[in-house]
Amino acid sequence: MKICVLGGGNGAHTMAADLSLQGFDVTLCELPQFKKNIEKVIETKSIELMGAIEGTAELKGATTNIGEAIKDADHLYIVVPAFAHKIFAELLAGKLKKEQVIVLFPGTFGSLEFKEIFRKKGKDIGNVIGETQTLPYDTRLIAPAKCRIIDRLPAKIAFIPANKSKEILENMRDVYKALHLKGTYSDVIEAGLNSANPAMHTGVCVINIGRIENRAIKGDFYLYGEVTPSATKLNKKLDEERKEIGKKFGYNITSLEDYWRGWLKPGWDSKDLLRVMRGDPAALDEAEPNSIWHRYFTEDAAYGIVTWSSIAKQIGIPTPIMDSVINIYNVIHERDWWKEGRTVEDLGLSGMTMEEMKDYVKTGLKA
Amino acid sequence: MKICVLGGGNGAHTMAADLSLQGFDVTLCELPQFKKNIEKVIETKSIELMGAIEGTAELKGATTNIGEAIKDADHLYIVVPAFAHKIFAELLAGKLKKEQVIVLFPGTFGSLEFKEIFRKKGKDIGNVIGETQTLPYDTRLIAPAKCRIIDRLPAKIAFIPANKSKEILENMRDVYKALHLKGTYSDVIEAGLNSANPAMHTGVCVINIGRIENRAIKGDFYLYGEVTPSATKLNKKLDEERKEIGKKFGYNITSLEDYWRGWLKPGWDSKDLLRVMRGDPAALDEAEPNSIWHRYFTEDAAYGIVTWSSIAKQIGIPTPIMDSVINIYNVIHERDWWKEGRTVEDLGLSGMTMEEMKDYVKTGLKA
Repeated sequence: MKICVLGGGNGAHTMAADLSLQGFDVTLCELPQFKKNIEKVIETKSIELMGAIEGTAELKGATTNIGEAIKDADHLYIVVPAFAHKIFAELLAGKLKKEQVIVLFPGTFGSLEFKEIFRKKGKDIGNVIGETQTLPYDTRLIAPAKCRIIDRLPAKIAFIPANKSKEILENMRDVYKALHLKGTYSDVIEAGLNSANPAMHTGVCVINIGRIENRAIKGDFYLYGEVTPSATKLNKKLDEERKEIGKKFGYNITSLEDYWRGWLKPGWDSKDLLRVMRGDPAALDEAEPNSIWHRYFTEDAAYGIVTWSSIAKQIGIPTPIMDSVINIYNVIHERDWWKEGRTVEDLGLSGMTMEEMKDYVKTGLKA
Repeated sequence: MKICVLGGGNGAHTMAADLSLQGFDVTLCELPQFKKNIEKVIETKSIELMGAIEGTAELKGATTNIGEAIKDADHLYIVVPAFAHKIFAELLAGKLKKEQVIVLFPGTFGSLEFKEIFRKKGKDIGNVIGETQTLPYDTRLIAPAKCRIIDRLPAKIAFIPANKSKEILENMRDVYKALHLKGTYSDVIEAGLNSANPAMHTGVCVINIGRIENRAIKGDFYLYGEVTPSATKLNKKLDEERKEIGKKFGYNITSLEDYWRGWLKPGWDSKDLLRVMRGDPAALDEAEPNSIWHRYFTEDAAYGIVTWSSIAKQIGIPTPIMDSVINIYNVIHERDWWKEGRTVEDLGLSGMTMEEMKDYVKTGLKA
């Protein structure tokens, strides 16, 4: 199977290398305007991994020529921040073959945005589009073409149309195994709601804005090390609102506690979210966010709680704490995240009842 | 004129002493359960003031016998935190003579709560009740019966019924002068909306909750010294919402900028709220709030933004930022400030149109 990994950051480098090391035919493709992100890879065709995954991977190719990169690919894996989904969707619209499968690692509903952009351009030829709820790696680029992998993350996958899932999963069985995927969601809305970061970060961030702005005096901010009782209360409340949305849809939503439980070493006490977050070995030494423009604010608002709140409003679930965090972000950022963020309009779900949404993600067809 | 000052904290001590030094016949009265607050004063009948006001005042009396204290008083000055207004109103109901004037320093709509409690107990005999928008002093008890006054504060006064204002002001002309009052508001709603603290404190507090909880690691929190750009943006937004409420009523609301402008030394730049707040000489050296249970959180929510928001809802003014701050406080405090705080129900304004409210505070009579 020929795979094209689209992107040029931590995740794209890691996935291209990891899959290459496991014998897949992989091409890495970044946008021309960000060529320098993958310049070293273009030059050497190799990426070094260290940490939880070790090895020097030889790639089939690395390019900024997107047409060339995707031409013979069976699968296209989009490994970019959520705000970049739109630009890739617009580039790919009309350039795909029907049998090419797209997967977003992770998606946070991006599969629906892809489909909606294809549709609006009159280019929806029915490609299957998948997404996971998380990047399958906790990883950082530490030098050009060199990544340190802290751990694999337990990603699950879903596809639109969901009724093609079985067939696609057969087709990508080897990749599924190679990426250590942990199962499937019933559909992409369930996948999107299972993204944990917005509930994990925005509560901590909103009550630490002053601390973050004062870091010149008080030192770098460590989200996990400095998480406090109030932050945990807000996290739990945001999570409850998220779970209420999922419950109404009839989905399984992995709670923050359960999310962390999966990370715990045997014998650890997982009952206390505060203690668990503070004890996370992966995150403790990262000094972030150190700006109110960090993705824990912007991405987790615009492509997290804004999206959840937007869906919740449409099905009549109140989300006062999500809304309050967004309102406060709007003031400090002097932006309107309600408008700039990813909402039911961007996802092509506007005006649908819950049943219509579920039917749409199942069949890929609007009533 | 005989004055009874009710209370036993910073403000009550200072006012009892200040008025005594200026020749008034003053009795200080604290509740029996808080006797120790004024024990030294009961013993010596004197209070020492230093700082912006200097002198050792001889009081007429100091007692915890409220019946005795108020019996012959012409004016009763309630100088207690807002949450204590209710208990004093309930104690005084049915024990007053019609000509006795009550003034709350400050009120934050407490005069309306007093009247409503009297009314509900069938004991509203039409006493005039006044309130100021601020305590007339920035002051702290630094030892028993000894206060340090940082500055006088520019208090303005209003009464319910407002149509008795002129008469009462004639009657209390000497006190007005002695307390350096700076004018009047058209009614007690205008006075209540001119309280500045809730707009000044809650924005800074909500984005510093984590900082305050982490003070064991990062040191004491200094609200004015650590105020940040985001805090100032929130303050301004809270203030805009407050001004919108006032505007709809047709009131003059002193903005935060104008509030601080009055404090500035000649030549200071008053345009930048951030710079001005950071430059406040009075507040810079106070390490507070150092707990999420400090009055900057609790009093400024329950008797500040909750009250404003409650009035705003009744007249159709949106207050999304006030509401967002309260929602977040509800989570971190595990309380329901919407219920526990002072709302239109407590003030006897529930169900009234804006015109009915204005008429009520003018005449003291419900339609």
